[in-house]
Amino acid sequence: MGSARIFNFAAGPSMLPEEVLQEAAAELSNYKGTGMSVMEMSHRSDVYARIFESVQTAFRRVMNIPNNYSVLFLQGGATLQFAMVPMNLIGKTGSADYAVTGSFSGKAAKEAEKYGKIHISASSEDKNFTYIPRQEDLEIFPNASYFHYCANNTIYGTEWNYVPETGEIPLVCDMSSNILSKPVDVSKYALIYAGAQKNMAPAGLTVVIIRNDLAGNAFPYTPIMMDYATMIKNDSMYNTPPCYNIYILGLVLNWVEKLGGLKALQKRNEEKAALLYECLEESQIFHPVAEKEARSNMNVTFRSDSPELDAMFVARAADAGFVNLKGHRSVGGMRASIYNAMPPEGVAALADFIRVFEQNILR
Amino acid sequence: MGSARIFNFAAGPSMLPEEVLQEAAAELSNYKGTGMSVMEMSHRSDVYARIFESVQTAFRRVMNIPNNYSVLFLQGGATLQFAMVPMNLIGKTGSADYAVTGSFSGKAAKEAEKYGKIHISASSEDKNFTYIPRQEDLEIFPNASYFHYCANNTIYGTEWNYVPETGEIPLVCDMSSNILSKPVDVSKYALIYAGAQKNMAPAGLTVVIIRNDLAGNAFPYTPIMMDYATMIKNDSMYNTPPCYNIYILGLVLNWVEKLGGLKALQKRNEEKAALLYECLEESQIFHPVAEKEARSNMNVTFRSDSPELDAMFVARAADAGFVNLKGHRSVGGMRASIYNAMPPEGVAALADFIRVFEQNILR
Repeated sequence: MGSARIFNFAAGPSMLPEEVLQEAAAELSNYKGTGMSVMEMSHRSDVYARIFESVQTAFRRVMNIPNNYSVLFLQGGATLQFAMVPMNLIGKTGSADYAVTGSFSGKAAKEAEKYGKIHISASSEDKNFTYIPRQEDLEIFPNASYFHYCANNTIYGTEWNYVPETGEIPLVCDMSSNILSKPVDVSKYALIYAGAQKNMAPAGLTVVIIRNDLAGNAFPYTPIMMDYATMIKNDSMYNTPPCYNIYILGLVLNWVEKLGGLKALQKRNEEKAALLYECLEESQIFHPVAEKEARSNMNVTFRSDSPELDAMFVARAADAGFVNLKGHRSVGGMRASIYNAMPPEGVAALADFIRVFEQNILR
Repeated sequence: MGSARIFNFAAGPSMLPEEVLQEAAAELSNYKGTGMSVMEMSHRSDVYARIFESVQTAFRRVMNIPNNYSVLFLQGGATLQFAMVPMNLIGKTGSADYAVTGSFSGKAAKEAEKYGKIHISASSEDKNFTYIPRQEDLEIFPNASYFHYCANNTIYGTEWNYVPETGEIPLVCDMSSNILSKPVDVSKYALIYAGAQKNMAPAGLTVVIIRNDLAGNAFPYTPIMMDYATMIKNDSMYNTPPCYNIYILGLVLNWVEKLGGLKALQKRNEEKAALLYECLEESQIFHPVAEKEARSNMNVTFRSDSPELDAMFVARAADAGFVNLKGHRSVGGMRASIYNAMPPEGVAALADFIRVFEQNILR
């Protein structure tokens, strides 16, 4: 099987570590002698309760999460959090601050307008989201219930290289596309959320890390499934959680710990990204899209000055086993998503392919 | 592997067909030569789009769904539908009718009270939900935006053996625990919803069948992920759907069609249930909990007159490979959930085990 696998640069859902897939396949029909698949287990059974608890514990250990935070395993993706966050948190003052640095943070701000007054603290739309605002350019309103930003912008290939200082204003962050890619000081945040399908597990699981004192202030019309207090109280099991996705997250966390944890992964991810960015800086036909200090270690956006050449590159790369490199339509060009599970060999091979492609073009 | 599997009578998540698990395991790491797992596929990729469309088409074919209905693949379980239904439908008149025949229909009615005036059209709580109200006992209010009921009550082991006649009032039904167990005349319904984890797929997928003209009337504060109109317009892909669960649903639908479709499954399920109910009627120590005409073909609740004897039965059954037979705490006794994937041999073996247990007790 190994050799038949290809390098998948999709922005999400995206690659999972090969050994995770092999382990999942081996015990899919019969989990550790229980006579059943994890997919078939009652979420209230002892055997599943042990899986659930071990995943939660591993997640806390890997992310180094303080005791006054809860880890929730929910559904609906980051997009449901766009509503769930304000439904629970904006009631305090009636307003919130949003930094808009890409498509998803823009959607988050728009969704939040249903629930209160939204102030755009910063936006990088003036340069098509190719940069991240500096700390000194963030307008923090003292009356905000929270400040929301998106740590990594999948579509534009930009990533915040600092944690915003917001004083007394609680910090809320969408980490969907860079969670588990590097250490995070969770204590700086009030709430972190992330869809699973980039660095954690198959689509259908949303992880929320919430400081416990923030729960309990939902609007009266908030669905019970969207009240953080309900989910904290019921340890994510008010109804049946996405059990199998949670189990896969556990396998991924084992893999993360085997590699040395988030510090080791950070080094690995920085090295992987550097391979590509260096290759692109040397290139005479391709160039990175994002400004240098805003470049993402997860999504590398690049292009030539010719859409035709870009299309040719994408097609030839796919033929060579590098798939899903076409950039999002709002950026054009190419995007190589190199999340945790993309092996360094995959990135090195892509860099080589770029060089050879270029030599053939310039010849 | 086959012989090591046990008979799992869990109420959900519950058994999946063994050949579905084997097929999923075989192609988990590399789906049909694509070099990647279905878990890793971009939901916008051609290969995943083909999977998605084939599952939707198969679901329409198996359930015989008219063209003016949409089939949606959502998240959040039936419990999120408890809010989503009124958020989208109750605005028409401001009120709705609910029949309360168990725990989940009670929770649905309670959740709906956040969004409008709820009228309880019927309740079987007076006899601890052991029966289903008759058509002539349903109070239908002409001003209701819809009438809601739950077709099968997992906890109490009762099932509606008729479709309520509600005249002009749109009919909304929670079919979480009996969908795909028998043919349904979808045209009688305005909206059907079901969590996947009993008869369809691993937990984390919710299927909604909605008549298209009902969408578009959501309250302004409805999260965009909970607006049926958004999901119809985006064919369930406003954000990343639970892709792998949908793929497993496809394998289950193939299995349903191989068995002959819903008519054949209905016969099989009736025969399976009859095996157990006949055994319990003959028993001198056990008896069914539900009234005869309300008995569920999916969840068979039964007990003796002694909680100690029930506990002994559950323990001995588990030792013999019949697991998860303990009844819900609100009913006590035992519950054998015998959804589609429970093979007739499993039910026959359980009936034999009951008889032998009884002989040993009465000896």
